[in-house]
Amino acid sequence: MAHPLESIFRPKTIAVIGTSRQEGTIGREILYNLLEFEFNGMVFPVNPKAPVIHSMKCYRSILEIPEDVDLAIIVVPKEHILRAAEECGLKGVKGIVAITAGFKEIGSQGVELERRLLEIVQRYKMRMIGPNCMGVINTEKDYMMNATFASGKPLPGHVAFISQSGALGAAILGHARELRLGISKFVSIGNKADTAADDLLDFLKDDEETRLILLYLENFGNPRRFTKVAKEISRQKPIIAVKSGRTLAGARAASSHTGALAGLDVAADALFEQCGVLRVTSVEELFDLAMAFNSQPIPKGDRVAIITNAGGPAIMATDACVNLGLTLPRLKPETRAKLKKMLPEEASIENPVDMIGSAKEKHYAEALQVVLPDDSIDTLLAIFVPPMVTGSLEVVATINRISKQFAKPVLGCFMGRQDVLQNIESKPGEMIPIYPYPESAVKAIEAMVRYRAWQMKPESSIRTFPVQREKVTLILEQVRQEQRRWLTEGEISEVMAAYAFPLPCSAIVRNVDEALAAIKDIGYPVVLKVTAPGLLHKSDVGGVLVDIRNDRELTQSIHQLSTNMATVKDTYPTYRIIIQQLIKGGRETIMGMALDPGFGPLIMFGLGGIYVEILKDVSFRVNPISELAAREMIESLRAKDLLMGARGEKPVHIDSIIENLQRLSQLVADFDILEQIDINPFIFSEDPAKCFVIDARIAVKLEKAAETKKPAAFQ
Amino acid sequence: MAHPLESIFRPKTIAVIGTSRQEGTIGREILYNLLEFEFNGMVFPVNPKAPVIHSMKCYRSILEIPEDVDLAIIVVPKEHILRAAEECGLKGVKGIVAITAGFKEIGSQGVELERRLLEIVQRYKMRMIGPNCMGVINTEKDYMMNATFASGKPLPGHVAFISQSGALGAAILGHARELRLGISKFVSIGNKADTAADDLLDFLKDDEETRLILLYLENFGNPRRFTKVAKEISRQKPIIAVKSGRTLAGARAASSHTGALAGLDVAADALFEQCGVLRVTSVEELFDLAMAFNSQPIPKGDRVAIITNAGGPAIMATDACVNLGLTLPRLKPETRAKLKKMLPEEASIENPVDMIGSAKEKHYAEALQVVLPDDSIDTLLAIFVPPMVTGSLEVVATINRISKQFAKPVLGCFMGRQDVLQNIESKPGEMIPIYPYPESAVKAIEAMVRYRAWQMKPESSIRTFPVQREKVTLILEQVRQEQRRWLTEGEISEVMAAYAFPLPCSAIVRNVDEALAAIKDIGYPVVLKVTAPGLLHKSDVGGVLVDIRNDRELTQSIHQLSTNMATVKDTYPTYRIIIQQLIKGGRETIMGMALDPGFGPLIMFGLGGIYVEILKDVSFRVNPISELAAREMIESLRAKDLLMGARGEKPVHIDSIIENLQRLSQLVADFDILEQIDINPFIFSEDPAKCFVIDARIAVKLEKAAETKKPAAFQ
Repeated sequence: MAHPLESIFRPKTIAVIGTSRQEGTIGREILYNLLEFEFNGMVFPVNPKAPVIHSMKCYRSILEIPEDVDLAIIVVPKEHILRAAEECGLKGVKGIVAITAGFKEIGSQGVELERRLLEIVQRYKMRMIGPNCMGVINTEKDYMMNATFASGKPLPGHVAFISQSGALGAAILGHARELRLGISKFVSIGNKADTAADDLLDFLKDDEETRLILLYLENFGNPRRFTKVAKEISRQKPIIAVKSGRTLAGARAASSHTGALAGLDVAADALFEQCGVLRVTSVEELFDLAMAFNSQPIPKGDRVAIITNAGGPAIMATDACVNLGLTLPRLKPETRAKLKKMLPEEASIENPVDMIGSAKEKHYAEALQVVLPDDSIDTLLAIFVPPMVTGSLEVVATINRISKQFAKPVLGCFMGRQDVLQNIESKPGEMIPIYPYPESAVKAIEAMVRYRAWQMKPESSIRTFPVQREKVTLILEQVRQEQRRWLTEGEISEVMAAYAFPLPCSAIVRNVDEALAAIKDIGYPVVLKVTAPGLLHKSDVGGVLVDIRNDRELTQSIHQLSTNMATVKDTYPTYRIIIQQLIKGGRETIMGMALDPGFGPLIMFGLGGIYVEILKDVSFRVNPISELAAREMIESLRAKDLLMGARGEKPVHIDSIIENLQRLSQLVADFDILEQIDINPFIFSEDPAKCFVIDARIAVKLEKAAETKKPAAFQ
Repeated sequence: MAHPLESIFRPKTIAVIGTSRQEGTIGREILYNLLEFEFNGMVFPVNPKAPVIHSMKCYRSILEIPEDVDLAIIVVPKEHILRAAEECGLKGVKGIVAITAGFKEIGSQGVELERRLLEIVQRYKMRMIGPNCMGVINTEKDYMMNATFASGKPLPGHVAFISQSGALGAAILGHARELRLGISKFVSIGNKADTAADDLLDFLKDDEETRLILLYLENFGNPRRFTKVAKEISRQKPIIAVKSGRTLAGARAASSHTGALAGLDVAADALFEQCGVLRVTSVEELFDLAMAFNSQPIPKGDRVAIITNAGGPAIMATDACVNLGLTLPRLKPETRAKLKKMLPEEASIENPVDMIGSAKEKHYAEALQVVLPDDSIDTLLAIFVPPMVTGSLEVVATINRISKQFAKPVLGCFMGRQDVLQNIESKPGEMIPIYPYPESAVKAIEAMVRYRAWQMKPESSIRTFPVQREKVTLILEQVRQEQRRWLTEGEISEVMAAYAFPLPCSAIVRNVDEALAAIKDIGYPVVLKVTAPGLLHKSDVGGVLVDIRNDRELTQSIHQLSTNMATVKDTYPTYRIIIQQLIKGGRETIMGMALDPGFGPLIMFGLGGIYVEILKDVSFRVNPISELAAREMIESLRAKDLLMGARGEKPVHIDSIIENLQRLSQLVADFDILEQIDINPFIFSEDPAKCFVIDARIAVKLEKAAETKKPAAFQ
């Protein structure tokens, strides 16, 4: 069965509704671009006010067109769009590209208009790109279609580009042309009312012309679907994304560690990381990477050789390599011997190989032929600084020619590239990428190495543990009915136990007698903690006493807690006391879940105490998380050595952390009602039997108007 | 008195020794460039083999020239350079630019040739640029001189450029021309045998034509002089530097924390920070900043307004601003009201002001005129994405014109800049900087804000405390004579006491009786530590016992230490025991000094324990340090909140840290023989009377061959 977006990209007939004969209008430019790019099906202009446009018969309505119409490009003013869409539906149109603006982007009245437009599209089972977009391009030979109002003719090639910003899309198309980056598909997705980036990724997955996908996104429509689709594609076709709006979420208020730390766009970072999308922070970097991925094979490893005719830029390239974690190995003795023979005495045959200023294309050719087969390197960076601006073109051509004899990536850095590029005549994708600065080239190499690591990463599935799900369902249902936000200590213990989190021995008691009875099972030393509905910060009310070693201390302590709670009895009229086995040693960690408004639940892990509070040294993943993702969460901590065994200490039991992260992931996935979880501290030690949840807080989503519900008292 | 480098930059007569008539040779290009750039003094070609070059009489030797010669450009093969230089001396030449290569850069034989060349230069009291350089440019009206072999004609302007790499210098000159960045002076310093960057900075300090200085450096000749000169200039004339070779020093072995952490180029970072030089990491960034500093006033603060015709790039600019710590305030109500009146309904009058795609130059003009006077902003970034490539030039011209009516910096971001720039005719420095990507523009703004902060920083002087310097001199002299590397515990205590570092009460004893006598002054609880010549890691031999509370424990402990030391008596035949007052509470920090081979002593400060070992959270400054520098060292720690008072704890006494850092700085400055100092831990607490040096290690530089000297035994 054909893909639902087939009608958008491969129509046989197109109607341009709202086209115009007036130069400089969008309606005119789109018609012009379609014809200029030689769309080989039929194009029908539609405009009730003009009988002829561009020597073509113009129809007053799409309904008057004597042929079937597959795709309609709508450029009418927003006042007329609903009728235009309705007529498309009646005509049997399958795809719409809605260029018209004035919808969601202008606020509430636009939101309503967009809703009504989408309703029409869905009623007639059409698909729509936009509204508020700048169109679609396909450069496939049989479907050459430039349905945008961008100026200039796209170069055909194998790079697909999806942009949430129309203006940026136009600028990017222009820039791609300058860099001779060939486009397979271009889509300006605008307001994404019907079709978002994930739909398009799904379409591009099987598009043979597309080998590399570039994204400019400001937000995600459906992060879960995006993750799923991107994951399916990204091992075969690299996806490189600019996601802007990174800092806008920062101001969001949050009431837990996990929540507060989840701001600042960690969700998008985590999501891209989890589905193998290479995130870059600027359009410049997007192009730097695209140039390399588009024309070069993926390197087998991180070892880089540099060949240069000038010391300065090679030092800068070396700095960049080392900073980004790439290695510059020594070349093999036989390689060095050959270089020594062919290069002048003043040259350096170390890596970087400095052929000095007198090097001509001949030297580049010989050096590449000697260095590229050396199996101690994976990628070659050729740097050329023209000392007297002669022969640049010849050097570029030579390097490019030799590079094709080997299966390793070769990148060029030419300081003074502008001249060179403007004079190169080559088909897109056939020329090595040429960078004006060494740092850009090295960034591209590093991204390719990172992509290789992603390709090589084993598939890791989501584990499901046997748990007492039904029990938790009942507890959470109870909480929901009572319209409480926070679970009580008792409920939390039951939930944690149901998902087999390791808990210290404990009991909940009301008085000294119950305590003395309970201690027989728990054993000294213990910790006492009060629990009361609505009480979140127990220490603040003197509600925690530690290291109680005998019956006498226990009795005293229970009285002490009673005195302390008496001072706050207006706020917390009833309370209970938790007696908990005292856990000594181990590392304090924090594990939690916070909801991101766009991405849903995020799982967090970090070291406890000052690491989380001052150093913000935590990692996030979008739920659910695989075993591998859990391991990466641990390994991405700056202070991970504290867990892995630093300063001669024994490492904690890492597999226990991984398992408990996955249990948390399962709990979160099982219950949509959960709003936040903070397990803090979660103590891990060398012995898996000595890892314990010491304290935890769990909140559920409240239905609105229930926020002010008073805490229930104990019966 | 004229500056010693006057003869290099402002000669009346120039001889080109080794010039040639052959096209494509360096000797020919330099002569050609001198004439092409219309040097208005006399130029004399010198070449024994040609009677005429370029229609000019050619002399066989500089000695034959009938006029006085101020400056000689030497291009002869290296075999002839000593004779050429000698003849320059005899002729009374004052300055030499030595283009010839084949010196220090090719290894030992070159080093010797360079030494002999320098000897001649110094004997005749000449000054020399190079050797192995590509020349000098001056664009001053009365001294127009292009004595380089770079192609293309430099644009006169107010930017001086000093490059340690000749090839990079040529590429940069070309790039500057493309960006219409006008040059005041250009110097390729080559091997810096006689003249280094600091000499040139000293010259540029009073050069009226130079308002901005750009540096490309690979290393420093004399870091102390560089710091001094750069500091004098940088408040008036911004200095922007690329320092490469950042990672090469990383592999250096080091035997202390301070030393190990001092790798990776922290010295250069510290030095630039201390003298107000703006360090960038690439030539691209160098130009991004130069464009802004060259044409725009320095902003008064960090508040940025963004005006755009497209959402995407404005979001990216916002991200960049927030990430770099700039603020985007709301505009004032009256500004917003005016914008609302002039812009279409769909526009956003928040900051970023989004005038939407229909905005023309008229809208930019109006918006700038309204937003620039708003005193809630300091800098304006104007973004323009041409939706149909019309009117770009007009928009640029308009923004530029309006910007000149206000004293605030205005930067432009035009996606599709290439076209625009190529068609702009303006004098260097008269056009606002235009960036192809928003991130570059924002980086430039951030650098200007940082520069402003540097300009506003109060002068901070180096403090000198009254200390017992003579006492330390005697101790170190003793250590030197015994050819020991490490000071003993006793010596360390005396040194620290002489410079008034706070030490806990302590005594050095040999046995139980002495210990019981000493304890009367110290008081329980105490710590016992063994000390033995050559013993660095006391804990490893069981040589530390803590929290000894009474006479019985003291006696037992001394016996215990005796037993422990018996097991290692072959290595440490004699030892003593230090009894030290036990210090409880406070924050453990580490303070130290390490020698950088290029920069001399660096002062380090950080939090102790895992902060230094795992998180590497430390800061460095080049010695000596001012009070302000000491304060900045504390404030630049990631975990500084632990000192400043985190989680409701009281802050430690910061002024004590500052004072002790300055005392350490003074100690280091007083004694060149010191090689490394590690004060670890140095405990600071809220009460200045409760801050103590707990342990310290001090090493001196050993004369060679003394490394293997055996530790001395106690008498």
